[in-house]
Amino acid sequence: MATIVFCTANRTAQTTARRCLTTHLTGLASARESHLPFSSTHSHSVTLLPGTRWFSRAGRTRRGALALSGAAAVTAAAAVAGFLANANHFQRAEMATRVSQAAEEEEQEGDILARCRRFMSPPVTDTSVLQQRKMEMRTRMEMLIMETQADFCRALQEVDGGTFKVDRWDRKEGGGGISCVMQDGKVFEKAGVNVSVVFGNLTEEAAKQMRSRGKVLKGKDGKLPFCAMGVSSVIHPKNPHIPTVHFNYRYFEVEEEDGTKQWWFGGGTDLTPVYINKEDAFHFHNTLKEACDKHHPQYYPDFKKWCDRYFYIRHRGETRGIGGIFFDDLDSPSQEEAFNFVKSCARTVVPCYLPIVYKHLNDSFTDEEKDWQQVRRGRYVEFNLVYDRGVKFGLATPGSRIESILMSLPLTARWEYMHEPAKGTIEAEMLEVLRNPKDWV
Amino acid sequence: MATIVFCTANRTAQTTARRCLTTHLTGLASARESHLPFSSTHSHSVTLLPGTRWFSRAGRTRRGALALSGAAAVTAAAAVAGFLANANHFQRAEMATRVSQAAEEEEQEGDILARCRRFMSPPVTDTSVLQQRKMEMRTRMEMLIMETQADFCRALQEVDGGTFKVDRWDRKEGGGGISCVMQDGKVFEKAGVNVSVVFGNLTEEAAKQMRSRGKVLKGKDGKLPFCAMGVSSVIHPKNPHIPTVHFNYRYFEVEEEDGTKQWWFGGGTDLTPVYINKEDAFHFHNTLKEACDKHHPQYYPDFKKWCDRYFYIRHRGETRGIGGIFFDDLDSPSQEEAFNFVKSCARTVVPCYLPIVYKHLNDSFTDEEKDWQQVRRGRYVEFNLVYDRGVKFGLATPGSRIESILMSLPLTARWEYMHEPAKGTIEAEMLEVLRNPKDWV
Repeated sequence: MATIVFCTANRTAQTTARRCLTTHLTGLASARESHLPFSSTHSHSVTLLPGTRWFSRAGRTRRGALALSGAAAVTAAAAVAGFLANANHFQRAEMATRVSQAAEEEEQEGDILARCRRFMSPPVTDTSVLQQRKMEMRTRMEMLIMETQADFCRALQEVDGGTFKVDRWDRKEGGGGISCVMQDGKVFEKAGVNVSVVFGNLTEEAAKQMRSRGKVLKGKDGKLPFCAMGVSSVIHPKNPHIPTVHFNYRYFEVEEEDGTKQWWFGGGTDLTPVYINKEDAFHFHNTLKEACDKHHPQYYPDFKKWCDRYFYIRHRGETRGIGGIFFDDLDSPSQEEAFNFVKSCARTVVPCYLPIVYKHLNDSFTDEEKDWQQVRRGRYVEFNLVYDRGVKFGLATPGSRIESILMSLPLTARWEYMHEPAKGTIEAEMLEVLRNPKDWV
Repeated sequence: MATIVFCTANRTAQTTARRCLTTHLTGLASARESHLPFSSTHSHSVTLLPGTRWFSRAGRTRRGALALSGAAAVTAAAAVAGFLANANHFQRAEMATRVSQAAEEEEQEGDILARCRRFMSPPVTDTSVLQQRKMEMRTRMEMLIMETQADFCRALQEVDGGTFKVDRWDRKEGGGGISCVMQDGKVFEKAGVNVSVVFGNLTEEAAKQMRSRGKVLKGKDGKLPFCAMGVSSVIHPKNPHIPTVHFNYRYFEVEEEDGTKQWWFGGGTDLTPVYINKEDAFHFHNTLKEACDKHHPQYYPDFKKWCDRYFYIRHRGETRGIGGIFFDDLDSPSQEEAFNFVKSCARTVVPCYLPIVYKHLNDSFTDEEKDWQQVRRGRYVEFNLVYDRGVKFGLATPGSRIESILMSLPLTARWEYMHEPAKGTIEAEMLEVLRNPKDWV
C-alpha cells in the first residue's frame, strides 16, 4: 500500500543523470556529518514572508507558474486545505509529491526573486548577488536548501496549526543562517529546520577535518577560501506513535592554491520511531530507495548501511533509530549529477515523513507509551551529544550559534536507571530492531 | 549562622598531617576526573546488610565501639530519629558530623569485619583479603569509600523515606562495584552512589591517560599492574530549591617495571543549585574550606578554582553549578597525609549537603520554578555527556557498566530553544553567577 505514496519522480534528474557512476562507493565508508554549525554573533526574529503554504502549489500548472503570494496564496491555500481535510494521508503525500515536482521545474526557470518570495526569510546571500551568479552551484544549492526549509516548515505548520519562529542570524566572519523552530505545538513537541550559508577562510587542518576521507588540500599561505551551506532538521512529535525524523543536506566548496575548486555534497534522512510500525518503515525506506535508484542502484544499499553505522550509540549497542540514508564526500560522477541526486533527496523529505505524521495524528497513547518515548528521547540526546560529529564540531567551534546546533535536542527527555522492557512487549520489539538493524525494503 | 554547622574536625588528620606541604599546587592545574567506570559483565541486586542508620552512631562512645547491627541498631536509630524530628537542620548536621568523627576513630581500630557490616553490600574485595592486608592503602581506601557510600546513602534514605536499590556487579577482568540508586523518591528524583574497585593490567598509553599530568610509566613488557577505586555520587532532588550535589573520591595504584608503586588520589565535591541561596553557598563552601584548611591553606583556594575550571560548559559560557573543590593527581606530601586529606573530604559530604536538604525540604515551588530546574538539568546533561572526562572515558571503554556511569544523569531534563530568563528575575541572577563564578567565603 505504501508504495503508492512515493511518486517524487525527479524527471530532470532522470534524464540528465544516467551516466554510469564508476566511483567505488565503499571508499565513502568512514562516516562524517556536519550540520554547518558556524558562528553567529547576532540574531533577530523576522516576520514570515507572505507566501503559499506548502501544498498550495499543487493547484498550479506545471510550468511557468510564479510562486503565489499575498491574498491569492491564502485563498488558494484555503481551498486546498478544504480538500485536504477530506483526503487521507496517502492523497496528501501525493500532493506533497506534486509540490516537489513543481519546485523542481521552477529551478529550471531560474527566477530568483520569485522563488525567494516563498522562503521563510530572505536568503542569507543578497538576492542581487544570487541573481548575478545564478548558474553557480553555490547559488543553486542555496536556493535548494531555502526551498527545502520552506516546503518542510509549511508542511509541518499545516499539520500542526502552529507557526514557526523564524530567527535570522549573521556570522561575523561571513554568512549566516535562518533557524525555524516550533516548540510545544499541537502535534510537535519541538520542530527545528535550520539553514546556514557560511564562507571565509579555512586552515588546511580544518579543511582536512571537513572531509570524511581526510583529503589534504593545499592553500595559499596555508589558507583556503571556502563556502559551506546546508539545511538540517529534527522533528520531535508529541504522540509516541509519530516518529522523530532528521535530515541534513549540505554542500562544501574549497578553493586551492592554484585556483581549482574542490567541492562535495553530503546528507541523509533518517527515522527514529518510538515503536516499530513495519508499514511506516517500509514507506520511509522505500521512498528513499526510489529516489536513490533514479541516480544509482548502489546508492540506497550503500547509504542505508552507512546510515546504520553512523547513527550507532556504541555504548548502548543500539542504533538511534531505524535509519534511512546517509552519505558524505560525494564528488562524483559530476557536480551536476551529484546536485541532482541531493535535490532528489531533499525533495523526498516531505513525502517520506508527512504521510506517517497524518496516519498517526489521532492515535491514542498511554502514560507508559509516553514514558517509553521519553526514555528513547534520552537515547537521542546521548547520540547527539556524545557521537554526532556535526554537533561536536559545532560545540567546539568558538562563536557557533549554539541554539541552532542544539535545537536537535528534544524538549524533554528521561533517564531511568536500568530501564529494560519486559520480554514480549512492543518496547522490547523496538529495542530488538535497534540492536539488530533490519532491511525494510 | 551556617558557620556553626561545620564541625567535622578530622582530629587524627589534624595531629598527623601538619608537616609543611611543599608541593607546588599550581602544577595540578590540568583538570582530569575519572569515575572509575570500569567494565562489568554481571550484575545482581543484593539485600541491604542489617545495620544502623547513618546517624545512629552518634550515640556511641568515641572509641572502641563496634558498629551496631540488627535489632539494637534499629532501636538506637529509632531513638535518634525521635530526637531528629525535633531538631533543626543545623542540629542534624552536627550529628552527621559526630558520625564522621566516630567513623574516623574506628578506622584506627581496624576491625574490618565489624566495619563491613555497616556497608550497603559486602565489599568488592573479599573480607579475608582485606583483613590480610589491612594496613595497605588499597584496603584503607576501599574501606573509606564503602563507608562513605553507606553514610551518604543512609543519610539520604533517612530524609527521603525511600530505599536504595543496591546492585553489585563484577568486572570480568578483575574487581567490580556496588551501585546504589534511589529513583523517583519523595525528596529525590534520582540519587546514585556508586563504588568501584577494579584491578588488572594497563597498557602504558592507558596509564599515561589516567594521570592528569600525563606522566610516563614504564611497564614490564608494556603492561602495568594497576588497581583503581573510588566512590562517586550525583543526587538530583525533586524540589527546585534543593540543589543537586556531586562528589567523587578516588585512588590509583600502578606498579612499574622495577616494582615501585606509583599512586595518586583525586576527587572533589560540588553543588549545582537551581536558584542562588547565599547562605547555602556559604555553608557548602565554608564546610569544604574548613576541611581543606586542616591540611594545607592553599588546598581550598586552588581546588576551588580548579573546580570552577573543570565544571565549565564551554559552549554555554557558564559553569555547571557554583562549584566546590576539585583536585587530581595528588601524590604529596606523603601517602598518609594525602589519604587523610581525602578522608576529611569524604567525611565532609554529609555535613556539606544534608543541612541544605533539610532546610529546603518543605519549600513550596511553582510550575515555572520546576521548569527552570528542568532547563538546568538539561545543562547538567550537556556537561556530563560533552565534557566530563570520567563519563567520556567510561563510555569509550568496552565492557563498561554504562548504567553506573550514566546514573549521574537526571530522571528528566528539558531543552527550550532560546531560553533566556528575563532581566531582574531570580533565574537571571542564577545565570549571572554561573557566567561569573564567585567567591563564597
